[in-house]
Amino acid sequence: MIRTVLIGAGSGASYFLAGLEKLKAREIQPVGIPLVNYMKAHRPEDIDVVAVYDVDNSKVGRDMYSIASKLSPFSSVPRTLKDIVVSRGLHCGSLRGLDVDASGLEDALGSPQQALEEFISELVKLKPDVIVNVITTEPMRFVESEGEFVKLASTCSAGATLAYAYAASEYSLRTGNPVAFINLTPPAAANSPGVVSRFERAGALVLGDDAATGATPLTADLLEHMAERGRRVLSVAQFNIGGNTDFLSLTEPERNHSKEVTKSSMVADILGYDAPHYIRPTGYLEPLGDRKFVAMHIEYESFGGFRDEVIVNARINDKSNLAGLMASIVPVAKSLLERGVHGSYATVNRFYMKMPGPRGTKNISKIVAYQDLLKELKKLDII
Amino acid sequence: MIRTVLIGAGSGASYFLAGLEKLKAREIQPVGIPLVNYMKAHRPEDIDVVAVYDVDNSKVGRDMYSIASKLSPFSSVPRTLKDIVVSRGLHCGSLRGLDVDASGLEDALGSPQQALEEFISELVKLKPDVIVNVITTEPMRFVESEGEFVKLASTCSAGATLAYAYAASEYSLRTGNPVAFINLTPPAAANSPGVVSRFERAGALVLGDDAATGATPLTADLLEHMAERGRRVLSVAQFNIGGNTDFLSLTEPERNHSKEVTKSSMVADILGYDAPHYIRPTGYLEPLGDRKFVAMHIEYESFGGFRDEVIVNARINDKSNLAGLMASIVPVAKSLLERGVHGSYATVNRFYMKMPGPRGTKNISKIVAYQDLLKELKKLDII
Amino acid sequence: MIRTVLIGAGSGASYFLAGLEKLKAREIQPVGIPLVNYMKAHRPEDIDVVAVYDVDNSKVGRDMYSIASKLSPFSSVPRTLKDIVVSRGLHCGSLRGLDVDASGLEDALGSPQQALEEFISELVKLKPDVIVNVITTEPMRFVESEGEFVKLASTCSAGATLAYAYAASEYSLRTGNPVAFINLTPPAAANSPGVVSRFERAGALVLGDDAATGATPLTADLLEHMAERGRRVLSVAQFNIGGNTDFLSLTEPERNHSKEVTKSSMVADILGYDAPHYIRPTGYLEPLGDRKFVAMHIEYESFGGFRDEVIVNARINDKSNLAGLMASIVPVAKSLLERGVHGSYATVNRFYMKMPGPRGTKNISKIVAYQDLLKELKKLDII
Amino acid sequence: MIRTVLIGAGSGASYFLAGLEKLKAREIQPVGIPLVNYMKAHRPEDIDVVAVYDVDNSKVGRDMYSIASKLSPFSSVPRTLKDIVVSRGLHCGSLRGLDVDASGLEDALGSPQQALEEFISELVKLKPDVIVNVITTEPMRFVESEGEFVKLASTCSAGATLAYAYAASEYSLRTGNPVAFINLTPPAAANSPGVVSRFERAGALVLGDDAATGATPLTADLLEHMAERGRRVLSVAQFNIGGNTDFLSLTEPERNHSKEVTKSSMVADILGYDAPHYIRPTGYLEPLGDRKFVAMHIEYESFGGFRDEVIVNARINDKSNLAGLMASIVPVAKSLLERGVHGSYATVNRFYMKMPGPRGTKNISKIVAYQDLLKELKKLDII
Repeated sequence: MIRTVLIGAGSGASYFLAGLEKLKAREIQPVGIPLVNYMKAHRPEDIDVVAVYDVDNSKVGRDMYSIASKLSPFSSVPRTLKDIVVSRGLHCGSLRGLDVDASGLEDALGSPQQALEEFISELVKLKPDVIVNVITTEPMRFVESEGEFVKLASTCSAGATLAYAYAASEYSLRTGNPVAFINLTPPAAANSPGVVSRFERAGALVLGDDAATGATPLTADLLEHMAERGRRVLSVAQFNIGGNTDFLSLTEPERNHSKEVTKSSMVADILGYDAPHYIRPTGYLEPLGDRKFVAMHIEYESFGGFRDEVIVNARINDKSNLAGLMASIVPVAKSLLERGVHGSYATVNRFYMKMPGPRGTKNISKIVAYQDLLKELKKLDII
Repeated sequence: MIRTVLIGAGSGASYFLAGLEKLKAREIQPVGIPLVNYMKAHRPEDIDVVAVYDVDNSKVGRDMYSIASKLSPFSSVPRTLKDIVVSRGLHCGSLRGLDVDASGLEDALGSPQQALEEFISELVKLKPDVIVNVITTEPMRFVESEGEFVKLASTCSAGATLAYAYAASEYSLRTGNPVAFINLTPPAAANSPGVVSRFERAGALVLGDDAATGATPLTADLLEHMAERGRRVLSVAQFNIGGNTDFLSLTEPERNHSKEVTKSSMVADILGYDAPHYIRPTGYLEPLGDRKFVAMHIEYESFGGFRDEVIVNARINDKSNLAGLMASIVPVAKSLLERGVHGSYATVNRFYMKMPGPRGTKNISKIVAYQDLLKELKKLDII
Repeated sequence: MIRTVLIGAGSGASYFLAGLEKLKAREIQPVGIPLVNYMKAHRPEDIDVVAVYDVDNSKVGRDMYSIASKLSPFSSVPRTLKDIVVSRGLHCGSLRGLDVDASGLEDALGSPQQALEEFISELVKLKPDVIVNVITTEPMRFVESEGEFVKLASTCSAGATLAYAYAASEYSLRTGNPVAFINLTPPAAANSPGVVSRFERAGALVLGDDAATGATPLTADLLEHMAERGRRVLSVAQFNIGGNTDFLSLTEPERNHSKEVTKSSMVADILGYDAPHYIRPTGYLEPLGDRKFVAMHIEYESFGGFRDEVIVNARINDKSNLAGLMASIVPVAKSLLERGVHGSYATVNRFYMKMPGPRGTKNISKIVAYQDLLKELKKLDII
Repeated sequence: MIRTVLIGAGSGASYFLAGLEKLKAREIQPVGIPLVNYMKAHRPEDIDVVAVYDVDNSKVGRDMYSIASKLSPFSSVPRTLKDIVVSRGLHCGSLRGLDVDASGLEDALGSPQQALEEFISELVKLKPDVIVNVITTEPMRFVESEGEFVKLASTCSAGATLAYAYAASEYSLRTGNPVAFINLTPPAAANSPGVVSRFERAGALVLGDDAATGATPLTADLLEHMAERGRRVLSVAQFNIGGNTDFLSLTEPERNHSKEVTKSSMVADILGYDAPHYIRPTGYLEPLGDRKFVAMHIEYESFGGFRDEVIVNARINDKSNLAGLMASIVPVAKSLLERGVHGSYATVNRFYMKMPGPRGTKNISKIVAYQDLLKELKKLDII
């Protein structure tokens, strides 16, 4: 059993929980879960979600069956999700500016400090192995030192993601039970030196940041393909449009910028030069739902100076992708913990994340990252 | 200097020779040449083409300046190509059925045996390090044993590619100077056990088969991308249409079939199951010239059983690709010879070829093949 | 009521019948039916299918509920289709070479003449207004004179489509009740002078040939778009791949050629010059089912001699398209009959057909054809 | 001869002037010019550009040879363009916020009123038949009444386009020589009731607004194609990215909004309902230059409720398109003037413009607009 806490009761959690139950019931095949055919230490079916937190008042107190019935397109949602009721978590202003009626533990208890203490004490009861953060994209932040991390996070001054990360590290420190905190959203957890060093000290693990779903991994691998052929990439344009709240929230410039940063670093990292590019979530179009439309255009020069082009169009269900990554990284994180890995772990982050921590980690292509991952997980006897 | 003989004075040779001269003259950048930034033992600029062979009567006796001016789209073709005059090679019926006025040494000398002897004696004078075969696609053939190879090839009964390969092996055996024979066309040289074992015995090297140009390497890497995400590929359709003689000759069913075979093995090899696919050169459309149009559709299932799709469209100049591969593999082959590598060499073939020999070699994705190649060439101190 | 006989109990008939029943029951909206918002004389809901004919032994004697359940993707097929049982029709070798166990009335009764007499006498009982032909694509044929038509069709020597057309004309002649025979398949009915003149004499109507479904109408309108801008189209490539029996049967060269002819005439007709093109059903890929994948590439020159390109990719359900056309053209045909229109009718054919009859009819773009159609049907007080 | 004044010495003017000279010299074919094969009254070759105005200080005083050499990709620009020197025009703040060193006649002369008088007196000397406005996109404005038009435009308070339009109308009123003012940019000239009524009174002609170049006409015709088949369009996404100053200036939200408005009205006008859509210039990517990349995704429902999709990708040279439209509409406008047409003219605007005036004009598809245009121009004996 992998005791798992989910932060964020949105579509990602809905796809994940519904899919997981179906997987356990053998109603669906283990498709879309990286490494699943290799896993031996722990497997997706071992995941036991012991709590889900959110701050959206329309979700807190409701069960995941009713939420997943609304937020996922499964023709039937497993009724076992009725047993998972959403708890109130930390807000720290993370939904500010969006059209959501939200309140956090800090609103109920009067101060961020009390809210954090309450949340930590709930963790003590839940005894999680893994905490997975899939809340709505917040504006980007970094914390440089442990001191800054403790100071800002404990007062809710660095957003919800860092507050949750802080709670996770405190839980590990206080109980001596190391936890893995997996940040699948853009704010810098595994990319903040202050956060990583705190987890290091706690013997705990922070993985992140920003799950590599959607078109970005595909772009990375296409760029690797170009680079290996020695082609000179002249320009990269990539558009994304979707119909879920992710895209709605990204129409807020600050949040969009946060996404843009995590996507753009890879161009120079993979090609070795910063080819002109425009890679950005572009718009919101309600009928597309979770199946976003992606269009990409890459123009390049090949031997002799001749110009060619590759155009990619895709319909991609980001949420199904995300849920599959969750089903893969949770067992991996649990195994890493058991083998004493702590701090952060670049080899894992490079495959699963758009902005792999710790800071300074090169954003290599996903296929190359995967080969390295295979090798290292084999060495650790995880796969 | 890498003394190099080209078999085939078509567009591939034209792009290669014109590009190479421009590269030596620093008129163009070394773009589109795999590994070029790593090479230390030998480099593309070291290639010295000492002879070009063909059987097309409109080419034999003409210089490569006039041929490349017609067959390549460079705005200016280097006048140094006037020094390379096309010699008559072996026909062995390789252009049968196509609208080309061709005759080989066997027609001039009366028998295949005499033609081969003549060709081998020319090699003895030319002292090549590397022989590169880029003739028009012939129907597919395999030879199982050395005996079969010697018997069929020496009588021109297994097509021109195998006859040239035989001559290369004979040259190595007789002179003790091992040569590398690089087969960039579909017939099975490196995939024929009889050929590989003959080269093995001669201390020589045969690399092949069928240069990995065009859309096939891209398809391979896209399939790898899918496989690593655990997605279930439901179908793959890939169309190709171009306007050069390659596409014209592929309207002949036998030659088309030859291409189809080399492209299809990879689906099962990369995915681990044989997803339904249609991957085939599709038609001829004159105005496209060398810049073929490729359309690809991949439908797949991801976590939870949801269906997504990726559509790729590309304009790809196969000949520029091919010339870049030639500029890369020739120095590599020379370095391998110097380090005593003989027989065939799967690690190299897996990256550069569509149907990597020797027979039984798994057709892995190009990005993975490239990672392995980097590692092995480093070990051999070639890069 | 429009008494309608369907020839062909395949997927086209299945989509049409199931959709029609759902439309009558107001379970679906009248979507995908050209002109539906204009129709006043007769409407799709007025169609009454009184018989369905086929020669596939696995279909004859079965009801359309069980057939449509297998051949259409509706989540529920209306049970009212249980009342429509497939009758045995004329074979005339139309399925020769395909893997279908088929026998026609001529096999049961001993001769084509007796089969035709039997079929005509069934028509006399059925009193159809409209007969719609949607059998599997046969090789292309033309008949030049009435004499040739009568001679070949009455002996089953010109395929099933022409035999059915002959029966329809005989029915009209003998009973004085003119019928509309709508040929939605490639063989030349409305394009055969002999057929049209026979219908003319019978006061009956023959519409055809080859329903304008799939990518062809889209290509036509894109070419019109180019032409109106004065652009010079340099090349047109269009690929099609699908997973139903249509595509399977088109892997037979003769049937494929039949399709190719009906698609290619439009390039010169719309552009005014025969731009190089490759427009052809390309392959069979089972998992695509009825939703074929289409890829199209158009390169053109615009003002100043600059080159641009348009690439279209589509997933198109041909059968849903076809069924929508059927629901539109049947009421139109009935109205035309009532207004005394006989022979053939180019204005209708130009919009609904890929190869509009009568012979010599220009294959204009669909948008232009539609504008003309609107105008003429208004004049005739049909819409 | 058609005496023509160009407002705006940017790439549009450069392509147009260079192309026109090449056309007159028979160096290029009359490709990309709508109606060119029909024109009989006047033809593109009759256009005589008598003046070009701009306010960019790096352009004023320079000749169009040097400007077109920089702004157009012709391999050679006709030296006859050396004779056309750019004059200083009206600024009216039209380039405010963009990184251009600009000053208008009002800066030189001290007031907008004096600037306008000066410009009008230059027109009196130039005796133009046609004035074509192709300045950089300004924010959108409308003027309701003639009074408002005169008051705002004469004081430079409604942007440069309206100031030029005002000058054109004044010129016509004062000299009795009616001029055609063709507004190929988004601000509402032909869509402002006050402007149209002023031109009406002056016996002059105002055509506009916003030239139908790029992907918008294609989108219009695709939507018409869908509508005629009775399909229900579920969503339309259209992205545009380019590398010229148009796209750079559109990164300014106000100017972008202006473009968005002119593109969006057509969805409801053509389909009859406002299908959810996102149609917008999306970004700037320098290496694309004038050949912008367009991606479009249309999802729709067809008969039976099944979903299909069409995806379009295009490389489109907007400036070549624009120049071709200019070469077409100038002779048409001259002919209309000669036949006494004044005010505005919806039939012409509907084909050539994205936002056809006068206000209230339905934004029908381009193919339908073209058919109407053909008919009306024939009636007027212009073609």
